[in-house]
This record gives sequence, structure tokens and C-alpha cells, in this order.
Amino acid sequence: MWSLPPSDYSVLHLLSLVAVAAQGMTAALAAGRRSMDWLGVCFLGCITALGGGTLRDLFLGHYPLAWVQNPIYLALAGGAAFLTILMARLVHRLKLAFIVLDAIGLVVFTMTGCDIAWQMDATLPIVIVSGMVTGCAGGVLRDVLCNDVPLLFRSELYASVSVVTGLFYATAFGLKLNAELWTILTFVLGISFRLLAVRYKWEMPKFVFTEEEEREP
Amino acid sequence: MWSLPPSDYSVLHLLSLVAVAAQGMTAALAAGRRSMDWLGVCFLGCITALGGGTLRDLFLGHYPLAWVQNPIYLALAGGAAFLTILMARLVHRLKLAFIVLDAIGLVVFTMTGCDIAWQMDATLPIVIVSGMVTGCAGGVLRDVLCNDVPLLFRSELYASVSVVTGLFYATAFGLKLNAELWTILTFVLGISFRLLAVRYKWEMPKFVFTEEEEREP
Amino acid sequence: MWSLPPSDYSVLHLLSLVAVAAQGMTAALAAGRRSMDWLGVCFLGCITALGGGTLRDLFLGHYPLAWVQNPIYLALAGGAAFLTILMARLVHRLKLAFIVLDAIGLVVFTMTGCDIAWQMDATLPIVIVSGMVTGCAGGVLRDVLCNDVPLLFRSELYASVSVVTGLFYATAFGLKLNAELWTILTFVLGISFRLLAVRYKWEMPKFVFTEEEEREP
Repeated sequence: MWSLPPSDYSVLHLLSLVAVAAQGMTAALAAGRRSMDWLGVCFLGCITALGGGTLRDLFLGHYPLAWVQNPIYLALAGGAAFLTILMARLVHRLKLAFIVLDAIGLVVFTMTGCDIAWQMDATLPIVIVSGMVTGCAGGVLRDVLCNDVPLLFRSELYASVSVVTGLFYATAFGLKLNAELWTILTFVLGISFRLLAVRYKWEMPKFVFTEEEEREP
Repeated sequence: MWSLPPSDYSVLHLLSLVAVAAQGMTAALAAGRRSMDWLGVCFLGCITALGGGTLRDLFLGHYPLAWVQNPIYLALAGGAAFLTILMARLVHRLKLAFIVLDAIGLVVFTMTGCDIAWQMDATLPIVIVSGMVTGCAGGVLRDVLCNDVPLLFRSELYASVSVVTGLFYATAFGLKLNAELWTILTFVLGISFRLLAVRYKWEMPKFVFTEEEEREP
Repeated sequence: MWSLPPSDYSVLHLLSLVAVAAQGMTAALAAGRRSMDWLGVCFLGCITALGGGTLRDLFLGHYPLAWVQNPIYLALAGGAAFLTILMARLVHRLKLAFIVLDAIGLVVFTMTGCDIAWQMDATLPIVIVSGMVTGCAGGVLRDVLCNDVPLLFRSELYASVSVVTGLFYATAFGLKLNAELWTILTFVLGISFRLLAVRYKWEMPKFVFTEEEEREP
């Protein structure tokens, strides 16, 4: 019941376990800023880490959902969030580690999202969108539940990293390259892009529309 | 078209009708605090009362959804919300009644959620999660739509009641006890736990993380 | 891959393309008020324009989703949002055009939602609800992502227009009228109702409940 799926011990699968834990941890920090209680922290960890994949599976009609089939994902995400509570005092020393973990989560989730759409014979645009939803939607849910405007929509390059990673990864399907090699190449590219974007504060131009007028729903 | 399903007049089913109405009513009070219009109040009643079950059904791939098959649920939730508008002046006298109704909603929804997951041969963790989603997610949707941080994540024992109720109820499946008896036992336990938590303001410890640092999405 | 479905060039289908673009544009204005970046604007356009139909399809189990089958919808909604960024300076001169476009989106989405539920042999209440979800839920998602209380719940007649449009349209199924004629009649009625509501600021009564008391989650 709590065992891992026996069929898939690939590099990508193992990385995705790291990614689930990483997203659970970053969610816990957001939860702490809103003074949530312990169970709320664990919930937010699960929703953030597994929400993107859940939305993707709902959109594609891909049943059963990953965490329904392997509840270990719930334990992993919730457990990582809980661990973050215990080591909160260390967090400011681990800031770099969190940024790297978060980047791993983004890139790995994007790749798994592309994989699953591809296995369902989706078209290229949907493969890319599937990667983006898997990589980014969890963070959007986290921000909505914390009552923020999602940072995805207005902060550093995050969705852009997901799009570029997905595009790069998806071309491999057409090129029939060695799968493991391509996975590693995409991973390195995505992580590097994300970390450079954080380091140099790359941003997209913003759209500011301030005319105060009556709004329609 | 508006009739109840003929096959199921069990205690749990009748209680679930009470629960739908109860959740619609508590949603109406939240809507009133945000000055929603009458139709908005009815919508929020439906979303709160049926949102948890809807999410559960989407997660489990359990079609058709309850309210699609029996639109009476929509009428019941929306009608209860509308009734609350009419009797708003009495609400402060009925505060205790609302707390009890809300507790009934929580416990009964949790049990029906467990039932449905169990009928779909889900594993024990998913049975518990299914109960929790059914019992708690409607209130989370309500708070998000009212632009609040969900109270579930930071207030009294609510999700905890759902977890304990689900665990207690799920063990019955293994023990092959008399179903009606176990249903009633679980109901009494859950309601008592919830009402005691409200009465004595039991709370979980909170995780407060205030270090102001730049956030990643 | 990017082509339109060959089978359906009906009036309603062509209008629905206009509606998708219109909703993407109104979403862009909301995004601009929150200073989202360019990619965020395009995302919000897609979510607003396609979110209602997506929720409807999830509720009804109607797979594949429209935008998964025809990713052109994503390009259309995102492209319309992006175009709005470029012509933002003209927007205040085009206010009337936006109001009309928005009304077209509401009415056309409501009709397509009714159509799809009807094709799946849903009962009359579900046909109406399906129209409402398709017409209105996208705007609710937009407001939640912009961290507002959804205007749907407290502003001018918007959901009411959707209900009336759906009811009027659904009766045609029973009356076996000429389909094209009835589509046009419903369209004119819905648009007129919406524009009159905007023009004369028709509103529903609001439910205001201010008693400050402790809230339950």
C-alpha cells in the first residue's frame, strides 16, 4: 500500500521524489508566513507538491491520479512540510539549498508532465502545456490558498523556464535521441536557466494598466 | 428529475441531506459578510455544500457527480442558503444550532467520502483522504471565494476531526461490524469531538515563520 | 494540429471563437491592474477564456477537453490577451467595444455549455447549470487569481443573464424549433438583457450580514 511502483526506478522517477519533497518544503515556508497550524502546513505541502500533477491528470483524463495510486507521495510531501517546521530555525542558512530544490521541482515536474502527455499521444502544444501545468500550477494553488496574487504571474522567470524546458525536452521525442542522455541534458539546461534567472533577477516586462474605471465581472 | 434516488434511504443518506443544507447555511453567513447579492449567496451555498464531494469525485474519477445525477442537491444547498438570507435576524439566536449543523455536515460528509472511496476499492490512506476532502474542501473553496486564507488551515480542530472520524469509521470495514451500528457510533464520536473542540477552543500548535526574505514563486 | 475542427462551422461555433478572444481581452485588463508580466497576462487570458468550459467538461466527464483537442483555443485566448497589452492605450476609447465583446462571451459560452450538456442527455437543471458554469466560471477564476472577491457574486446582473439565456435556449430543445433561428433569437435576447443591465445598472438585492462573531471554518 505504501510501496513505490516497482516498474519505474528511472533517474526521472527518483528525481521526482526529490521534487515532491522540495515543493512540500517551500510550501511550508509560505504556510509559516500565514501562521497556519501544523496540519494546515502539511495540507499546503501536499496541495503544492501534488496539485500541478493532479490538475494535469484531470485535464488529460489520466486516471488514476498519481497520489491515489501511490499514497506515498502524500506522505512524502506532507512529511517534508512537517520536517520544515522542525528545522525552521535553520532555514535562513539553507536559503541556497531551498532555491536549488525549488528549481529541481520545477524542472523535474515539467519533464514528467511532458512524458505523461506524450504517452497519451497528445499533440506538441498539449505536451508543452502539460509540462507547464505540472511544473507551475502547484505554486499557483499555494499562493491562492495563502491569499496572494500568484507570484507565477508577476515575478521572475518561472513559467518561462518551464516552457523552455518543455520545448527542449519535447524535441527529443522527434529526434529519437537516447532517452536518459536527453533527460539529463534537459535537466541541466532547465536548472541552469532557473538559477541564472534567480541570480541575475531576470524578469519579463510587466503590463501595468491603471486606468480606474468601473469593472465588469 | 428532482426526485431522490430510490435505492438509498439509509440513515447516512438522510443525514447527508441535512449536511448539504447545513453547509449551504453556513456559507450564506460568510457570503453576507462580503455583501454578496442573492444569487451569489445561493452559488456560494452550492459550492460550499457540494464542492468537497465534487473534488473527491474528480480525484477518484467517480462519475457521474452526485449533483449531476440528482440536481435536488443543488436546490437543497441553494435553497438553504436563500432561507438563511430571510432569517438572518434570527441567526445570532441560533448560533448554537449553526455550530451543531456545521458539525453534522463535517462528520457526515467525511463518512460518505470514506464510503465512496471504499466502494471503489481504494487503499486505506485514500479512504481517509477521500473523507477529508469531502468533509473539508467545501469550506476551503468558500474561504478562497470570500478572499480569506482558509480557516481550515489555521483555526480550531476541523480537519483533525475529519481525520479521526475517517480513521475510526474506516476500521469498521476491516472489523466487519454491523454497518448501521458503526455508522451511528462514528457519528456520535465525530460530533462530540468537534463540539468539544469548539467549546474548549482546542487548537493545534501553529507554525509561524516571519523571516522576511525574497520569495520564489 | 492547429487546425479548426472540420465538422462544425456553425454560427454558434464561429461566435464561440469571438467569445474566447473577448474573454482573453477582458482578462488582460484585469491582469494589467495587478501588474502581471506578459506571460502572466497570457496565462490569465487562457484561464479566463477556457476555465469555464474546462470546469464544465470536468463536471460532466466530457473528454477530451476542448482546448486539449484543439490547442488553437489556447493560442486564440493567449494571443488576444497579448494583443490587449499592445493596444492598452486605446482601451479607454474602446470601452463600449469591450462591454459588447464581454456580453458576447457570456451569452455564447452559456449556449455552448447548454448544447454540450444536452448532447450528453443531461436533465434540464444540469443543462442550465452547465450553461452557467461555462459562461461564468472563467470570470470567477480570473477574480480569484487576481485576489478579489469574485464580481460575479456581488455585481451587476451577470449570472442572472446566463440563467435567463440558458432557460430560454433550453426550452427550444423541447419545442423542436429550427435550431439556427432559435440560436439567433437567444443570442439577441441574452446580449440585450446584459447590455441593458450594464446601461441601467440593474442589480440584485444584496445580503449584508455584519454581526461580528467568531467564525467556524
